[in-house]
Amino acid sequence: MANVQQLFTANSNSEAAVEALLSSLALEFRDAPFTSSDIKVKQLVEKFAGSKLPQEPAELGSYFNYLSENVVAHSTHTSSPRFIGHMTSVLPWFVQPLSKLVTALNQNTVKMETAKACTPLERHTLAMMHRLVYNRADEFYREHAQSSASTLGVMVSGGTVGNITALWCARNSSLGAQNAFAGIEKDGLTAALKHYGYEGGVVIGSRLMHYSLEKAADLLGIGTRGLIRVATDTNNRVDIDALRRTVDDCRARRLHIIAIVGIAGSTDAGSIDPLDELAEVAHEAGVHFHVDAAWGGPLLFSRNHKQLLRGIERADSVTIDGHKQMYLPMGVGVLVLRDPFLARAIEKHARYIVRATSIDLGKRALEGSRPANAILLHAALHLIGPQGYEFLIDEGIRKARYLAALLQRHSEFELLGEPAINILNYRYVPEALREKVASGNLTEDDHNFLNHFNEELQKAQRQAGRTFVSRTRIETARYGGNRSLVALRAVLANPLTTEEDLHAVLADQVGIAARLNGAASAAQHAHAG
Amino acid sequence: MANVQQLFTANSNSEAAVEALLSSLALEFRDAPFTSSDIKVKQLVEKFAGSKLPQEPAELGSYFNYLSENVVAHSTHTSSPRFIGHMTSVLPWFVQPLSKLVTALNQNTVKMETAKACTPLERHTLAMMHRLVYNRADEFYREHAQSSASTLGVMVSGGTVGNITALWCARNSSLGAQNAFAGIEKDGLTAALKHYGYEGGVVIGSRLMHYSLEKAADLLGIGTRGLIRVATDTNNRVDIDALRRTVDDCRARRLHIIAIVGIAGSTDAGSIDPLDELAEVAHEAGVHFHVDAAWGGPLLFSRNHKQLLRGIERADSVTIDGHKQMYLPMGVGVLVLRDPFLARAIEKHARYIVRATSIDLGKRALEGSRPANAILLHAALHLIGPQGYEFLIDEGIRKARYLAALLQRHSEFELLGEPAINILNYRYVPEALREKVASGNLTEDDHNFLNHFNEELQKAQRQAGRTFVSRTRIETARYGGNRSLVALRAVLANPLTTEEDLHAVLADQVGIAARLNGAASAAQHAHAG
Repeated sequence: MANVQQLFTANSNSEAAVEALLSSLALEFRDAPFTSSDIKVKQLVEKFAGSKLPQEPAELGSYFNYLSENVVAHSTHTSSPRFIGHMTSVLPWFVQPLSKLVTALNQNTVKMETAKACTPLERHTLAMMHRLVYNRADEFYREHAQSSASTLGVMVSGGTVGNITALWCARNSSLGAQNAFAGIEKDGLTAALKHYGYEGGVVIGSRLMHYSLEKAADLLGIGTRGLIRVATDTNNRVDIDALRRTVDDCRARRLHIIAIVGIAGSTDAGSIDPLDELAEVAHEAGVHFHVDAAWGGPLLFSRNHKQLLRGIERADSVTIDGHKQMYLPMGVGVLVLRDPFLARAIEKHARYIVRATSIDLGKRALEGSRPANAILLHAALHLIGPQGYEFLIDEGIRKARYLAALLQRHSEFELLGEPAINILNYRYVPEALREKVASGNLTEDDHNFLNHFNEELQKAQRQAGRTFVSRTRIETARYGGNRSLVALRAVLANPLTTEEDLHAVLADQVGIAARLNGAASAAQHAHAG
Repeated sequence: MANVQQLFTANSNSEAAVEALLSSLALEFRDAPFTSSDIKVKQLVEKFAGSKLPQEPAELGSYFNYLSENVVAHSTHTSSPRFIGHMTSVLPWFVQPLSKLVTALNQNTVKMETAKACTPLERHTLAMMHRLVYNRADEFYREHAQSSASTLGVMVSGGTVGNITALWCARNSSLGAQNAFAGIEKDGLTAALKHYGYEGGVVIGSRLMHYSLEKAADLLGIGTRGLIRVATDTNNRVDIDALRRTVDDCRARRLHIIAIVGIAGSTDAGSIDPLDELAEVAHEAGVHFHVDAAWGGPLLFSRNHKQLLRGIERADSVTIDGHKQMYLPMGVGVLVLRDPFLARAIEKHARYIVRATSIDLGKRALEGSRPANAILLHAALHLIGPQGYEFLIDEGIRKARYLAALLQRHSEFELLGEPAINILNYRYVPEALREKVASGNLTEDDHNFLNHFNEELQKAQRQAGRTFVSRTRIETARYGGNRSLVALRAVLANPLTTEEDLHAVLADQVGIAARLNGAASAAQHAHAG
């Protein structure tokens, strides 16, 4: 088995060849002038029909050719300037060589023995993120950033784990040990509710809360019905009066409010809740206030737009995704915690690692072994820098407004609400319905037709692979809050996207819509004949 | 802000320079002849004392120099052949360029729209891992591997998320909807226990269960006291009779058993529970059987050793870590599920993504956005291959036995139990106590002295940075099951570790112990004088 041993030994010739091949694949992929190949899902899936383990080890060259032809060729060009449909976008080029270095170091930040410098580096990076949100005094950071007893934040694999961890801390700290009761961590939810005299536990936020909060409610034992979704105003912001009524109602029903959740950048519409007012409600109620700023957190870098997040500094916990508007690769999330001692509520130890007195990072985290992704975040904070992030945020919002104006000038499209930040919803309107849209006199059938048409349009556009927007279902004030409309959804976060690209995306949709219309008429015609 | 834009644009000169610099850093790091620098923790932490966000973006060259001098220079050489103390080891070199490609692709496997080929690739890879554990018929995989309704497994960020997900599935499926009750997922734990007539919920396994199961018990609402740790036999395997009594006792107390957990490779000692007998107990009790094979799973590749895992194919769920004995970088874990429909118990949807009818991978997972790490696992299954893994497993166990024999030949050391696989526990014994150790006549004071001495030895060895083993606390039959001994812990998983390296690790310890002894005598002398 000399071959296997060789895979672990420095082998400059093979390495250089594979390095060159994979680098050229990466480059080619990045520069492709389309968003995806037009292979059908069925054909694509057939390529991966096997399930047998390989009999013999593959030869390096043939394996990487396989990977190139079957995987790379049919991956989604998330970095394309015309892929403006999801929260995944182009990355700064330095993260590619840097992620290779992170892999080469292969540190495990669960524990200082397997991370050494990456342990204080991670704490240092989290202190910077904490400062971005809370901007406490220098002495606060001197005291807490590198202290074993303190946790300013946690690096997580993504916003979902961030949100779950935040609510876990909130649940445990609000139902802790008291008198003879050992606390929820030891004795569980049912005993905790009984001890404190509650009939149940709830988490409250707007109807637009991310589905990760449903996962959290389920995992934490309160059930998804314990996640109370409050109505929003016409701008998709949580209705504060409705929220106050919900809080009162929960108290009247002796339901323990584990947390109130504010959204800073809803996934559907980019909307931002009135965080300051939410903070006030949470403060009055004495309840943990969590802000899901997975998308919108980096607005804090923008002097022009940070006031949209006013009140976030009053949150007890804030989720910010690295792999969204911090422009880092998948798998990098951050949770920051206002109170450095909050995470003690979830602390766990093991005898072989993660001892109580060290600055080990694993003892107050949901995850165990973790990569040193803090290096990527640290690098981006220095190489892109706060000014660079400000530029990226400002540009995204500028382009969203440009696209909104463009849509309003073109009767083929209906803008479904002004964009709050850099996410916007719209739909295509076939000619026959344009007047009715202009006057707002659409019937139930008209809406159903538009829903169906836009769904087909988005699928056809995705399949063609030249440009991409996503789709969702939204409610708008214009057509009554209860009607669910299929919306096309654009996310403007790629710094390489130009105004010309935005025109091209719309032109692509107009062209596809014409073909869909033609096909529909032809079918109708054939049917009539 | 032209600078920022440039970071996102192909820039062959800067890229080539950074690429060359980081590659040489990686190479230098890998070839270093030591396990870590000897910098003191205090000094190291001082390097990262700041918490201010940078005022100006850094220049590329100076930033990477900073990174080299402060982070890379003081990271742990987990790949060193003489770093034999943790479950993190050398990686095959191809994962370095490949992780760069994964970063360049930046696919998000939560959803086919942002992953395309990586979605069926991930399902295909999970089918191979499922086959490794369960080896079902071909038609089973044809039916389920690529079916929207089926989930053969989940890629996770690590074993902890794997274990939590498994118990989440077990909890939800065993307390599901029934008659008027909507199920635990919607109505929560308290309502579920009440509906089914239980006084509480528990998870049962051996006292050596990984601390991730404590996190799971806490998160899932049963509390850590709901995690029942059963005694082990003299080989660190769960005592089946004690387990049966625990099951009976829980039933008598109307406690719902969510799952019985078997360990395949305990973190402390590498021990493997009698999985077949555990499966039988779980089957008789009608309870979910989970196997935490985060470490030991790849023994399935070894014809010589796979019988140690007999019964694993009867498990309902199995955790296997990619970043342990699959030799992949941090952040790659796998959970496989026997029943393709089990994960429906945790299914969640969102309107913008993760729709019910697609083969999207995000709908039945704890995490949301995730990198396409399946590429790394797929590559390793092909390039290392089952035969390569067999070699790696066999070699690790062979070396552990070699080290065990070596320790038994040297009176400086006491082997604390025969290694079950490739993890072993031992301690250093200063000369004055060697006879007493040989005869087994150690006093309480002697044990305390040995505990203290070995703790100091391990710390000094770690600090010196030439070689590394970890330490833990264990109980051994020889000195009565209740006495907790500080043990040195060696993990033999690096294919580059030679017998000479093992001699060098022990020689390093003997040398350090002599200095510690000398210092202790000198101190005593000074004190006496």
